[in-house]
Amino acid sequence: MVQPTKDDRFSFGLWTIGWQARDPFGDATRPPLDPVESVHKLAELGAYGVTFHDDDLIPFGSSDSERDKHIARFKDALAETGIVVPMMTTNLFTHPVFKDGGFTSNDRSVRRYALRKVLRNLDLAAELGAQTYVFWGGREGSEYDGAKDVQAALERYREGIDLLAAYVKEQGYGIRFAIEPKPNEPRGDILLPTVGHALAFIAQLEHGDIVGVNPEVGHEQMAGLNFAAGIAQALWAGKLFHIDLNGQRGIKFDQDLVFGHGDLLNAFFLVDLLEHGAGGSPAYAGPRHFDYKPSRTENIDGVWDSAAANMRMYLLLKERAAAYRADPEVQQALEDSGVTSLATPTLNPGESVADLRADASSYEEFDPEIAGARGYGFVRLNQLAIDHLLGAR
Amino acid sequence: MVQPTKDDRFSFGLWTIGWQARDPFGDATRPPLDPVESVHKLAELGAYGVTFHDDDLIPFGSSDSERDKHIARFKDALAETGIVVPMMTTNLFTHPVFKDGGFTSNDRSVRRYALRKVLRNLDLAAELGAQTYVFWGGREGSEYDGAKDVQAALERYREGIDLLAAYVKEQGYGIRFAIEPKPNEPRGDILLPTVGHALAFIAQLEHGDIVGVNPEVGHEQMAGLNFAAGIAQALWAGKLFHIDLNGQRGIKFDQDLVFGHGDLLNAFFLVDLLEHGAGGSPAYAGPRHFDYKPSRTENIDGVWDSAAANMRMYLLLKERAAAYRADPEVQQALEDSGVTSLATPTLNPGESVADLRADASSYEEFDPEIAGARGYGFVRLNQLAIDHLLGAR
Amino acid sequence: MVQPTKDDRFSFGLWTIGWQARDPFGDATRPPLDPVESVHKLAELGAYGVTFHDDDLIPFGSSDSERDKHIARFKDALAETGIVVPMMTTNLFTHPVFKDGGFTSNDRSVRRYALRKVLRNLDLAAELGAQTYVFWGGREGSEYDGAKDVQAALERYREGIDLLAAYVKEQGYGIRFAIEPKPNEPRGDILLPTVGHALAFIAQLEHGDIVGVNPEVGHEQMAGLNFAAGIAQALWAGKLFHIDLNGQRGIKFDQDLVFGHGDLLNAFFLVDLLEHGAGGSPAYAGPRHFDYKPSRTENIDGVWDSAAANMRMYLLLKERAAAYRADPEVQQALEDSGVTSLATPTLNPGESVADLRADASSYEEFDPEIAGARGYGFVRLNQLAIDHLLGAR
Amino acid sequence: MVQPTKDDRFSFGLWTIGWQARDPFGDATRPPLDPVESVHKLAELGAYGVTFHDDDLIPFGSSDSERDKHIARFKDALAETGIVVPMMTTNLFTHPVFKDGGFTSNDRSVRRYALRKVLRNLDLAAELGAQTYVFWGGREGSEYDGAKDVQAALERYREGIDLLAAYVKEQGYGIRFAIEPKPNEPRGDILLPTVGHALAFIAQLEHGDIVGVNPEVGHEQMAGLNFAAGIAQALWAGKLFHIDLNGQRGIKFDQDLVFGHGDLLNAFFLVDLLEHGAGGSPAYAGPRHFDYKPSRTENIDGVWDSAAANMRMYLLLKERAAAYRADPEVQQALEDSGVTSLATPTLNPGESVADLRADASSYEEFDPEIAGARGYGFVRLNQLAIDHLLGAR
Repeated sequence: MVQPTKDDRFSFGLWTIGWQARDPFGDATRPPLDPVESVHKLAELGAYGVTFHDDDLIPFGSSDSERDKHIARFKDALAETGIVVPMMTTNLFTHPVFKDGGFTSNDRSVRRYALRKVLRNLDLAAELGAQTYVFWGGREGSEYDGAKDVQAALERYREGIDLLAAYVKEQGYGIRFAIEPKPNEPRGDILLPTVGHALAFIAQLEHGDIVGVNPEVGHEQMAGLNFAAGIAQALWAGKLFHIDLNGQRGIKFDQDLVFGHGDLLNAFFLVDLLEHGAGGSPAYAGPRHFDYKPSRTENIDGVWDSAAANMRMYLLLKERAAAYRADPEVQQALEDSGVTSLATPTLNPGESVADLRADASSYEEFDPEIAGARGYGFVRLNQLAIDHLLGAR
Repeated sequence: MVQPTKDDRFSFGLWTIGWQARDPFGDATRPPLDPVESVHKLAELGAYGVTFHDDDLIPFGSSDSERDKHIARFKDALAETGIVVPMMTTNLFTHPVFKDGGFTSNDRSVRRYALRKVLRNLDLAAELGAQTYVFWGGREGSEYDGAKDVQAALERYREGIDLLAAYVKEQGYGIRFAIEPKPNEPRGDILLPTVGHALAFIAQLEHGDIVGVNPEVGHEQMAGLNFAAGIAQALWAGKLFHIDLNGQRGIKFDQDLVFGHGDLLNAFFLVDLLEHGAGGSPAYAGPRHFDYKPSRTENIDGVWDSAAANMRMYLLLKERAAAYRADPEVQQALEDSGVTSLATPTLNPGESVADLRADASSYEEFDPEIAGARGYGFVRLNQLAIDHLLGAR
Repeated sequence: MVQPTKDDRFSFGLWTIGWQARDPFGDATRPPLDPVESVHKLAELGAYGVTFHDDDLIPFGSSDSERDKHIARFKDALAETGIVVPMMTTNLFTHPVFKDGGFTSNDRSVRRYALRKVLRNLDLAAELGAQTYVFWGGREGSEYDGAKDVQAALERYREGIDLLAAYVKEQGYGIRFAIEPKPNEPRGDILLPTVGHALAFIAQLEHGDIVGVNPEVGHEQMAGLNFAAGIAQALWAGKLFHIDLNGQRGIKFDQDLVFGHGDLLNAFFLVDLLEHGAGGSPAYAGPRHFDYKPSRTENIDGVWDSAAANMRMYLLLKERAAAYRADPEVQQALEDSGVTSLATPTLNPGESVADLRADASSYEEFDPEIAGARGYGFVRLNQLAIDHLLGAR
Repeated sequence: MVQPTKDDRFSFGLWTIGWQARDPFGDATRPPLDPVESVHKLAELGAYGVTFHDDDLIPFGSSDSERDKHIARFKDALAETGIVVPMMTTNLFTHPVFKDGGFTSNDRSVRRYALRKVLRNLDLAAELGAQTYVFWGGREGSEYDGAKDVQAALERYREGIDLLAAYVKEQGYGIRFAIEPKPNEPRGDILLPTVGHALAFIAQLEHGDIVGVNPEVGHEQMAGLNFAAGIAQALWAGKLFHIDLNGQRGIKFDQDLVFGHGDLLNAFFLVDLLEHGAGGSPAYAGPRHFDYKPSRTENIDGVWDSAAANMRMYLLLKERAAAYRADPEVQQALEDSGVTSLATPTLNPGESVADLRADASSYEEFDPEIAGARGYGFVRLNQLAIDHLLGAR
């Protein structure tokens, strides 16, 4: 019943299953994984897509001919499996050259180099048919408040994104950009730390029409923010261009657990939002992309078990969210709690401020004590949701 | 030397010094404070302005004649002291009627009532000459993800703010709105949780031109975010319409300590940004508004000591920031670290993508190993800043 | 199936269901609840016990005769319903007199008064047959590091607890003490902030034999700590004398949600630990005490719905934990992951350091590469647990 | 004035200055540093001691003869410079073999191997004259609540520490152990997450008399805890055997900044506690050990600048704390706030519970309203401290 198929649009980054489990205090516990093997294995497990940073496929510093070979082998694997590449991105963080950032490095030569690295990979993205290009500016930031002129940095960020977006338009690539926010790690403070900050940044772009966000569960939860609520704001702004699903257990380092292995309740409501957030129908049609890390304690079997667990979690939650939405008692509880009525505008059709002021029932005759005594029944509604989540109804 | 004067533009909320120190686990420890007394005392201490929620001056449920009396007495105090009212706001959170929000309550009658309450107070704000009207939506949110349709809620929020902004324009009040973000408390999750989310919301408004933000130190720090960096993004967007200064010690309940009594280093860099963030000159010209709470352990003497401490902290930090900026060694360190060079565009004047690609020095001949070996000297720069902060240079 | 009975040993504080929903930014939304009514209603819902602070039953400042009347009415209700009082505690936080603490106030007269208040209530606790007396030192702490001599404060804390414990022994009350840690709120930093700090404090007491801990879910999670792990350490030390169950969504203000309505996964493993943590049998035999707050949005119906929801959550989780433990595939996975083998001592019976050194297989012939390549299968094990939690197996 | 000398007892770990700046998202930015060079450079800068993990000096897997050479070279450097080795420790975290822990790995053969690795290095510690041996159990923990039987793990931890402590006693090494707590990273949850949990664990040991704690600034602050308060509890328990100084900016990944470059106010009060916490004289006589990381943006010059910055920060704070303590106005404020009076026992000499009850002034005649109205003056006291910190008095 919860067997993933390509219709589910599950995708994985090469860097997720391929993570060798090097962490700040420990060496790699797993050997490298050949991208070609990854593609085949993902296909077997039921995924439909694979994504990658340039350096995941083509090691940093490869010659042109090596590069071509890597790409060719990879394309063959895609062709054999039917796996697609819905999204691509650039590694602007691993090499020391990016230690103070890419687009916003205090070193202008690095900024220029970063743009060139992205340009090159954008051409490949177009070639491979990627619809989305992600920008995670993990090194764009600082440890010390005096070490970065944040206004200037945002100006450079804008310069970079606008230049690249203009290029994509000019080339007719049909690619849309998705900015991935994160509050910190590896930098002490990262620019565009939350979905909100990224949306606000996009509003200042010249080519913001093709720029949206790629929120990641754990990144928002690292700031203690409600991920489902952040996604709702991105949807409301028409900017949910991509999504990174994983798990995080509270405010701490970036855990990248399996989706649903962190805040399970929020994961349930997230899936409910994605699948039913547009008046009952799906609010998001893009890939369900897992950006997680198989725990360092796992060997290759654990890698594939964890990949499968991501998809299983999504499908289990989807099934339970569907039952929740279909339950008449839930529907009644949503009514009773006023959840559904919030879609009704506060003013009547055509009502002006003067009209509102003339309506004595809105103020002069309104009894705040009575309205204040209303019980909203939110706890009961929440228990109904958990009952469904636990399969207890 | 650090004696506040009206030129410093320090303002306080009536609810700050007037807080009776009731907290979730304790009763009031101080008697009510007459707003008139507050105005006189603030004038004595060197403040220039006072701000308030409607209910701070006019108790909820007052009759029209009582209301008039409260206003008249208050105006007299303003006239006697020369204290101005640069900002006003609405209490949409204390009364039970707002327990599920004002503009976004699941109860439509509450939403209408909230709009009426604001409209009434906006007229008073205009009458008192306030230039800024703050919206802190502390009750706009939920404890349970299923209890609020966030997309609908944002739509209602937009409806409310746009209606009120249109009214202000229509009346020619010359008032600008400032939205104050907060991640949580008193609700489990609050809508528009950070400066970023508020800026993103404003970008969706019809009348966003007169809507900016009123960030509060502690509110951003409750999400673990860097306050100075958030202010820089607000400035970059041209949206820093007001600011709430106070102190917070990490991610926990809203502490509302004296400014500088929390994260002292970030407070230093904040003052530096406000005072020198526009190429050496002040980046913000509005009131330096303190939204803090005198600790519950303090009696009335402690209330005034704490009010004075806020202003003293600002002036001390301003003095040290000026010395920091003036120090030639700091200026050299800023150069060495590339901080100043970030203002230089990444592309040359008139340079196109094709030009950039044709510049072999930007990529083909660029040696990432050499650039990656550069020392940015950020620790030294930070130590220079702390030396200035500690008066050790 | 998930109908609570007295055998489940569910208990509630009078202050939980009776909370009037006053919060730092809002007035009460519910009328007071008569303790007698609470007792009857709790009995109906299936609870077995009720707990309270002195002031919950007997308003602060009551005369002796009023006090007697309150107690008499309450005893009648207990007799009528069969509800017991397994735990009692003292309110040393609401009144302004305790604003700098009770046992550790900087004011010695307050410290003496606090001891007297506890002594009086201990006699009542003995009279009502309470087995546990809780100490939550919510006001023992400070906002400013210079405002409290923490070493001296711990010395006063020890003096107070030891004096009271000696009294209880002397009187032959058979009562045990349980200290409830909390990191902050209402004070900026509270003494004994975590289960660990409380256990460490108890180890310094003269009468520590009758002093244990009363951990609360949300209090540990407010410090980002794993609650189930903290409970395990308390059990390991033989000090889990009582437990406060509720829900919390991350590091923020104290939410006091319904049990399981916060971190659901951790709640599952907590119930598993309590019910099967002693080699398969229950590791804790005391009351399952709910210390939560019905959300401010709820009316009296919501209060009782939420009380019922706490018990339902516990029983649902208990049922799923039992199925998890009984599943042969889970048992095999626990073996495979080495979870069960951790109970085996690292040294052989009677093995000395010299013996260990003489065992070449332990070092000289041990191949760390092979051992480092082992897959622990933790992700698979975790997915099995979630499958059981979701009722998906 | 703030020039470090050996009398200041500053020490550094080889792994601090020698950190190559590999992080979870980036490759090394600095070449390896020869331990011999480190010793010479530290001596030049004014340090008195150097500390290390076995693998810092002797690469994992070295043959016995290689090991001897590494040790010999290092001893020469110590002899030439007069630098001492006050503390040593074991690396039980980098190699994959420790991916599920050392003493508490679910794999018994790993547990035995870990003990052997420590035993070997303890002999070297004794040979080099180290007085303290640190245990940081960074891998002792789990990501999933079901993956570790915490009670069994604590039992294995106890077995390990007690065995090693017994060995040290038996050998007459005169070494004391210091356990270093950390809440998370690299594991999702680490055993003994805070100073409190470590102290509580030590209380359960057979050989706890020679076991204390080695708290690290950032590790406690990663749980939102007040570091100075935690140190005070460790001092109160007589267990502050060593200390790790560094800087952290709130609840996030482990930053390991320069001491004082994080929470500056808490650093000030920490130094005040260390230097004056025993009734005006130093409360801690051990090394002032810096466990920090030079930021990844720094080259070798930045490494040494940051090492020097740690010592400068300590000395600056020490100077200001001395001035704070010496200021008569501060002394009066401490009196007024009751800070000093907390050292007075709550009971009179020889007073019994019966005596206390007989003292009507303690309860029957005590007026809580009057005591509740007292102003403690904590804000003023705090401002005085900050004035001293800023050199503004």
